[in-house]
Amino acid sequence: MGDLGIRAAVPEDLPVIVGMLADDPLGAQRESPDDLTPYRAALERLAADPNQRLVVAVRGDRVVGTLQLTIIPGLSRRGATRSIIESVRIHSDERAGGLGTQLIEWAVEESRRRRCQLVQLTSDTSRVDAHRFYERLGFTASHVGFKLHL
Amino acid sequence: MGDLGIRAAVPEDLPVIVGMLADDPLGAQRESPDDLTPYRAALERLAADPNQRLVVAVRGDRVVGTLQLTIIPGLSRRGATRSIIESVRIHSDERAGGLGTQLIEWAVEESRRRRCQLVQLTSDTSRVDAHRFYERLGFTASHVGFKLHL
Repeated sequence: MGDLGIRAAVPEDLPVIVGMLADDPLGAQRESPDDLTPYRAALERLAADPNQRLVVAVRGDRVVGTLQLTIIPGLSRRGATRSIIESVRIHSDERAGGLGTQLIEWAVEESRRRRCQLVQLTSDTSRVDAHRFYERLGFTASHVGFKLHL
Repeated sequence: MGDLGIRAAVPEDLPVIVGMLADDPLGAQRESPDDLTPYRAALERLAADPNQRLVVAVRGDRVVGTLQLTIIPGLSRRGATRSIIESVRIHSDERAGGLGTQLIEWAVEESRRRRCQLVQLTSDTSRVDAHRFYERLGFTASHVGFKLHL
């Protein structure tokens, strides 16, 4: 399989990242892999924010996974900092091969390094396999996740 | 009842904010209103981050509510920016008086102003009244919220 590395995403990674975002039952309806313009602008906003880490997993010279980690300071829980994991995607060639676990473990370690006391994520109610995956990694399904589209 | 204002939280608000965080079935176990030191440090981190808005609702000269709004850029959904609402608390004197609605409506308007396409929040599964409240305001309970304590 080759060695796995995890590094910050760069503009050259965008075609593969957006391809992975779109190669998903939910993502297929809401991404535009043929027009990368909005993604380029978003990557610039992410790169400018020290509380954002958009990373890719790389095997050899291929991008095979991605994840976004946001660090959120706050007052609750005695001024606890928390992190939020978003937009986890694994290339179809790599699914069920342990890469998802490695990416989440990276995010948990990075959260510890940034002194977070809590790691959070939400997962669409339809992603039942993902729910089992997060529970195996020690996450607790303690909350209901609400969304409002503007 | 007097006019209601919503403004950025300042260090002088901390005793009342932390009192509200602690005056809650879940918060009572995890806050320390007698020692504000960790909260002061957290407020400094929040004030230094342009993607954070920690606000208080003020009626006359009394702080009666609080909410944290985080702006999160991202690649998913064609580079959509989203916002996350955290740590909503209403003073016990003001509950069921419409202040919660006004605070959430402020957060939604601020999210629009910051060009967010999505507003998210999670609520502990035990907070059944809060779930009905968010659904009345147009939020959809579409996700499962996972947490991992570090």
